[in-house]
Amino acid sequence: MNRPLESLFAPASVAVVGASEQPTKWGYWLSVGALTGRERRSVHLVNRRGGALDGVSFAPSLAALGEPVELVVVATPAAQFSSTVDEALAAGAKAVVGITAGLSRAAQAEVAARVRAAGAVLLGPNCMGVADAAAGLRLLWGELPAGDIALVSQSGNLALELGAIARRGGLGFSRFASLGNAADVTAVELLRVCAAHPATRAVAVYLEDVGDGRAFVAAAAAAVDAGTPVVLLTAGRSAEGARAARSHTGALAGDAAVLTAACRAAGVRLVATPTELIEATRVAAIPASVRAAVFPAAPRRLGVVADGGGHGVIAADLAVAARLAVPGFSDDLAARLAALLPPAATTGNPVDLAGGGERDITSYAAVVAAVLESSEVDAVLLSGYFGSYCEQGAGELAAAEGEVADAIAAVVHRTGRPVYVHSMAARSSTAARLAAGGVPVWSAIEQAVAAAVPALRRPGPPELPRPAGAVAGDAYWAGRELLAAAGVAFPPARAVRSRDDALVAAGELGYPVVLKALGLAHKSDVRGVALGLDDAAAVAAAFDDMAGRLAPAGYAIETMVELREGVELIVGARRDPRFGPVLLVGFGGVYAELIADTAVDLAPVDRDGARDLLARLRGAALLAGFRGRPAVDLDALADVIVAVSRVAAAHPEIAELDLNPVLATPHGAVALDCHWELAR
Amino acid sequence: MNRPLESLFAPASVAVVGASEQPTKWGYWLSVGALTGRERRSVHLVNRRGGALDGVSFAPSLAALGEPVELVVVATPAAQFSSTVDEALAAGAKAVVGITAGLSRAAQAEVAARVRAAGAVLLGPNCMGVADAAAGLRLLWGELPAGDIALVSQSGNLALELGAIARRGGLGFSRFASLGNAADVTAVELLRVCAAHPATRAVAVYLEDVGDGRAFVAAAAAAVDAGTPVVLLTAGRSAEGARAARSHTGALAGDAAVLTAACRAAGVRLVATPTELIEATRVAAIPASVRAAVFPAAPRRLGVVADGGGHGVIAADLAVAARLAVPGFSDDLAARLAALLPPAATTGNPVDLAGGGERDITSYAAVVAAVLESSEVDAVLLSGYFGSYCEQGAGELAAAEGEVADAIAAVVHRTGRPVYVHSMAARSSTAARLAAGGVPVWSAIEQAVAAAVPALRRPGPPELPRPAGAVAGDAYWAGRELLAAAGVAFPPARAVRSRDDALVAAGELGYPVVLKALGLAHKSDVRGVALGLDDAAAVAAAFDDMAGRLAPAGYAIETMVELREGVELIVGARRDPRFGPVLLVGFGGVYAELIADTAVDLAPVDRDGARDLLARLRGAALLAGFRGRPAVDLDALADVIVAVSRVAAAHPEIAELDLNPVLATPHGAVALDCHWELAR
Repeated sequence: MNRPLESLFAPASVAVVGASEQPTKWGYWLSVGALTGRERRSVHLVNRRGGALDGVSFAPSLAALGEPVELVVVATPAAQFSSTVDEALAAGAKAVVGITAGLSRAAQAEVAARVRAAGAVLLGPNCMGVADAAAGLRLLWGELPAGDIALVSQSGNLALELGAIARRGGLGFSRFASLGNAADVTAVELLRVCAAHPATRAVAVYLEDVGDGRAFVAAAAAAVDAGTPVVLLTAGRSAEGARAARSHTGALAGDAAVLTAACRAAGVRLVATPTELIEATRVAAIPASVRAAVFPAAPRRLGVVADGGGHGVIAADLAVAARLAVPGFSDDLAARLAALLPPAATTGNPVDLAGGGERDITSYAAVVAAVLESSEVDAVLLSGYFGSYCEQGAGELAAAEGEVADAIAAVVHRTGRPVYVHSMAARSSTAARLAAGGVPVWSAIEQAVAAAVPALRRPGPPELPRPAGAVAGDAYWAGRELLAAAGVAFPPARAVRSRDDALVAAGELGYPVVLKALGLAHKSDVRGVALGLDDAAAVAAAFDDMAGRLAPAGYAIETMVELREGVELIVGARRDPRFGPVLLVGFGGVYAELIADTAVDLAPVDRDGARDLLARLRGAALLAGFRGRPAVDLDALADVIVAVSRVAAAHPEIAELDLNPVLATPHGAVALDCHWELAR
Repeated sequence: MNRPLESLFAPASVAVVGASEQPTKWGYWLSVGALTGRERRSVHLVNRRGGALDGVSFAPSLAALGEPVELVVVATPAAQFSSTVDEALAAGAKAVVGITAGLSRAAQAEVAARVRAAGAVLLGPNCMGVADAAAGLRLLWGELPAGDIALVSQSGNLALELGAIARRGGLGFSRFASLGNAADVTAVELLRVCAAHPATRAVAVYLEDVGDGRAFVAAAAAAVDAGTPVVLLTAGRSAEGARAARSHTGALAGDAAVLTAACRAAGVRLVATPTELIEATRVAAIPASVRAAVFPAAPRRLGVVADGGGHGVIAADLAVAARLAVPGFSDDLAARLAALLPPAATTGNPVDLAGGGERDITSYAAVVAAVLESSEVDAVLLSGYFGSYCEQGAGELAAAEGEVADAIAAVVHRTGRPVYVHSMAARSSTAARLAAGGVPVWSAIEQAVAAAVPALRRPGPPELPRPAGAVAGDAYWAGRELLAAAGVAFPPARAVRSRDDALVAAGELGYPVVLKALGLAHKSDVRGVALGLDDAAAVAAAFDDMAGRLAPAGYAIETMVELREGVELIVGARRDPRFGPVLLVGFGGVYAELIADTAVDLAPVDRDGARDLLARLRGAALLAGFRGRPAVDLDALADVIVAVSRVAAAHPEIAELDLNPVLATPHGAVALDCHWELAR
């Protein structure tokens, strides 16, 4: 749906049903808030028992108003919710905000359907309200500071805390919408209209359930591409998802990993705390062209410039922990910096001005310019006092500080490289001048460093192909066939049912061979795979052992592949209930699986995407040839990953699909086993 | 040294040498600060060129004062520092604070020696000053808020930011000392006297170099044991340490890991940001007996109680990320909670009060009490609004809130289990009442969660033994001998120099054997180890190959041990320049070494300490028997670790010592290789 939602944020008229004179009631605060917009729109208060607030008498019903109302806020008890919504629609409402809690899922779905049928929209129910600073709309419990962040929150309670954090930081909201039970209006719709809202510079989203994950990714990616940063705080991994996991891939690709992958696809910054959700929006100050230019540049090379060794080294430590590079400067750059600074200054990276800023305040801009213009780093982090002279009212220095702020902003525009500032005077007018010029300022060094880590926007979120024909059949043989058709190499294999068949097949393939018991979920764990069988006696003994212990549905005899020649990996996919097909790549072997060295992305991926997954593994260096071993054939391995991702994307009926192990060697990649689970 | 330092923090008289009338000069701010204590002590200002400030004329010299001065602050140019200190000592100074910067290492060491010889102490030089709130002493640039934290900082600049952070959080400092170049007074001495200072409840330390690491650990452990929390922020890993590393252990046990180990030994909380350094001190509010009781309880089981699902789940997510357990509650406890709360409440873990606190504010205390008294968790984290009624001045609720705060504090004392509070009203009088009662309150949920992670205090920091006789000789044979004497098992081995010797030795030991080329730093990497040689021809071929390629100093022929039967580990030690002997345990094998799955502690350790190191490895489950494999003999493995740690501790001449690999099996542990580097 692509509805405009203007009736929700900027209505010409508003009514609050369930208005109250008592400050302990929601209906009181909603009414007080609604009345603050009285000069901009008609405001009606409705309560069947009568009453009045601030000179406005409560009407007994919406019908009694005798005029249409564009937006109706419903704060009645649950029993009256449905009929009140009907009255609102009858009164011509184009938007309904449902504050009411305690409705059943069925009841609210049914109301939402009626609202949609009438061409209107429903926010909530069980939500905390809506606000729009520019429109002077305030329909919520409490008060939120005004500013340029749009806040979409599934929890009303948390929004109050986010408001307090924003206020302390000198930030505020252009729009606020509390999702509540999201029976009609979704986070995706709100994200879309907020990103398109001219007074909004960044969107902060708090979700407990991301809903239609692919639609969220598409909307967020569009917002980011249009220059509006999106920051996401989520709560809780889905327990259902974990329980549903059956094979390895399911167990390893937890929802948090999928969400991270989705944010990477969209360029959304995923955070863990309310403070981070607010503080991360400050990057909106950076010119959109500068932000867009740095998406591909991860890991980013950061230059650190600080007033004093302490700030510089703490910033560098935090940057390295956040996987930013803090490269040493060339002798040439160091010499140029030395010419700008006192003898005690450190001119490596981090730079310690050592009082250089006090001696000559223009050296802040000169040093930042020299570092950014060198092309030796992609961004600069400035940490320390800059902004304090102004805050202290330090005469000439204070006046000069503002001009230096402009000079720093000019460097950003000139070089196309961002500057992130941590200042002890983050609320000073110098800081405001920096931010207005395109240089955001944080009061906490860790927030400034976090902002300098680029939120990746992968080129195009993966498009889902149309479903191919549904597959069926045995998880092993049919799976092999499907993946082989997609280009995956497997060793020669024969299906066998008896010991005699096994011996014949082994003879045909040539020793050594592998015997597998099929139809078991974790066949290695139950000794259902016998490797390196060198002769008929070994095959017979292995067969008898498995037949006696496991009584499997069938067996495979396969050519033995020498594992020592390569690196074992897992390549798998599963269908996530929110994000659809999800791809997982990890190192195989007991130890690597134990510590879960895996990378996850939305499927499908292309070869670049596959190589990016491999590069993100902690043990990635193994593939490039570690300690004198030869490098594996990365293209062949990437092609296996691409094939699995495409098969998974094209077959929604495949719940889980695993190639485990895939053996990557210098000469190619071969899948040594295959397993799938079909959706039931 | 165990000097009292009272002359530094509470002198009867003070003189500032280098006093100034100009507000751009340090001498001005030091003088202004000194004068604020005029009613408590005699304050003298000295400048040879004369002048006056606030009615106090500058004396031309210390000698001209005609009376002794206990504390002298020196802010002269570097050229006059030495003579000014002499004048101070002549004037009877017991403490000198050196603000002066730009002295050479030799010059300041020489001055420090003269100060010590006179029975006085020197803070700095190149420091930002000293302050003591109770004594009304303020000798520094700027101003710091008063409170109950002692701050020891190597950077003066950072102290100003820490002051701003503390002020914003309603905290402040009982004492402040800027270390500067620490030519005489050390961080260890300051830590010791601050921990013993009655007005100090916690010590915050910022260091760029920890100095005598073992002394720091001892002083910090003593402070922690006496009930004073110690929090440490450090900056930068030592590049020298990294460069000095030559063998594996050296490369893996970077300084950050050693520092973490030292903090674990002492019970010090190690943090990464200035905000954390200040916020972590709030745990001092918790009764010391309650804090002491939780040292061993890691990972701690946390109960989360929140106003609303959002806060609860965010807190739980953060707690799990911090390796706290958030266990589900028993049906019995859930039922007891349900009886206290509205029907919409969640009574698992996290608990969502769902308006229960608004309906009946006493339910905050009742729920916390029920959870803590259940013994199902070790601590409770309360997150959300508690404190807000008071802040909003909400009539009866506000009054009741204070009593509920007392009730929560009473639960802590009764159960001996701590409560950590995150409140949207962290600066309210309710929050202050909670803190006064033993329940700290944070404004950021992540700080409250971080505080709930116990700072481990291992039972007794390791005592260093007296050095045993110095060892010498070959890194392989002499090392084997020393460790075998300490109880480490090695396979039978013979030293050989020729191919003929090798064949004789192999015949005596019995095939299969291993041939090693000795005297090479990374013999595996250069194919200097030939495993599984099954007969004489194989030995001869391997010998010829190594002799031709490597021309090693010697060879070993050893009985082959089957690696598949066990798990390979690395057990090593190195001598850290600050912390002395340091132990490293890690998993072996290419992959595990690549991702550096290691644990580090100060040496020596006992068997419990060794098992704790093993338990901290990411792949620890491998040792306990993973996927049906048998568990290894943990006691035997622990004994190898203990032996290496004792040998390393007793032999300061051993710079690095590695057993790599140690093979742990269900039947014991055997070291398959040995290497050391002696100090040069």
